[in-house]
Amino acid sequence: MNIAQRIDHTILKAEATAADVDRLIEEAKQHEFASVCVNGCFIARAAKALQGSPVKTCGVAGFPLGANRATLKAMLATMLVKDGADEVDFVAHAPHLLQKDGQAAKDEFLEITKAVRSVNPGVVVKVIIESSLLMHDVDAAEGEARIAVACQAARESGCDFVKTSTGFHPTGGATVQAVQWMKKHSGGLYVKASGGIRSYDDAVTMIEAGADRLGCSAGVVIAQGARGGGAGY
Amino acid sequence: MNIAQRIDHTILKAEATAADVDRLIEEAKQHEFASVCVNGCFIARAAKALQGSPVKTCGVAGFPLGANRATLKAMLATMLVKDGADEVDFVAHAPHLLQKDGQAAKDEFLEITKAVRSVNPGVVVKVIIESSLLMHDVDAAEGEARIAVACQAARESGCDFVKTSTGFHPTGGATVQAVQWMKKHSGGLYVKASGGIRSYDDAVTMIEAGADRLGCSAGVVIAQGARGGGAGY
Repeated sequence: MNIAQRIDHTILKAEATAADVDRLIEEAKQHEFASVCVNGCFIARAAKALQGSPVKTCGVAGFPLGANRATLKAMLATMLVKDGADEVDFVAHAPHLLQKDGQAAKDEFLEITKAVRSVNPGVVVKVIIESSLLMHDVDAAEGEARIAVACQAARESGCDFVKTSTGFHPTGGATVQAVQWMKKHSGGLYVKASGGIRSYDDAVTMIEAGADRLGCSAGVVIAQGARGGGAGY
Repeated sequence: MNIAQRIDHTILKAEATAADVDRLIEEAKQHEFASVCVNGCFIARAAKALQGSPVKTCGVAGFPLGANRATLKAMLATMLVKDGADEVDFVAHAPHLLQKDGQAAKDEFLEITKAVRSVNPGVVVKVIIESSLLMHDVDAAEGEARIAVACQAARESGCDFVKTSTGFHPTGGATVQAVQWMKKHSGGLYVKASGGIRSYDDAVTMIEAGADRLGCSAGVVIAQGARGGGAGY
């Protein structure tokens, strides 16, 4: 798999315009990225523009705080799928994971995965666990334990991916350590690294740590780096 | 009015727990703050705990990116009111305001205000315009013009307040200049300053610039500063 096919080409900032999204879509078609990842208000636009293309449409739900009620997060995720999203990245309720409450996490993840699959059984679901928050201000054992709880809940609820970060949390984005732990505990789920991946070297580092998918706004720069040779992705 | 009665006592970070919210509620009762402002998943809890108290329950919708479809933002806001919120702070779709598209802004604001008032005609509605983003990288005339468009749309759609900031945008929170322009163009609407108000002096500065309400997590420190004398609030 070449590196472009691992990239969710992403723009999620508040000030993103329809024109920004249109540019993102054209770049994604040109470079054959895995998907275009945009906010809810742009999903219908992206899905329409990507019809007949191999590039998927990816939306975010409960983003970036994860602090809606689970039922509302499920409804938001479902609306993305109804608008045409092929993939949904939702944000886990952070306190469940910080407190290693696997049952509460699983209950939330299940409600969301069930809701979106009732609309489209083939939708790809990624749960964002905000790994840097889970690893913040605790020792390595506790950080890994929290990530393990998150990965188990993701697996048991039928998510397809565990994803590191929203890219909006002050504790930061993807790290090599987080991706390694997520790969170790994912039990076969895919891992998406996101937040702070700005160069081809960053991208290769994350893939070598275990990332199957990369969420970034620097996809064009990364694809150009890959054509320069590098690590062979 | 004393300063405590102007404060929306706020915790909106992703990692806020039910215990954090309970502490916030107790502090708000003790200091008689205007409201407790929390994320959607905690609104029912806050509303129940504040029953019979003068302290209001305030929720946020489309927070902090403002990038849900208007219809979904209206639904999220409505659910807050059904859960017991007395006040709703929603985030405007930023591109409308950046492009000074007053009609699109008004259409969005109207959809949200109508939806929440259909559940509770007395609900207080605040629209967050992310003033620092509107003033970023443009000259003063353009910054003021964007804020004027936002204020007019807020007024014409029946919002009660224009509010400066989510506190999450990288361009920053409330500034004296933003509050002064919002007061000038609000046509009688209330102004809420939020984002970066961390001390009694910050609070007094914002009130003197024209703020009727303050959104902050430092309410206890500010109320204690007021009891020390100061500017007489």
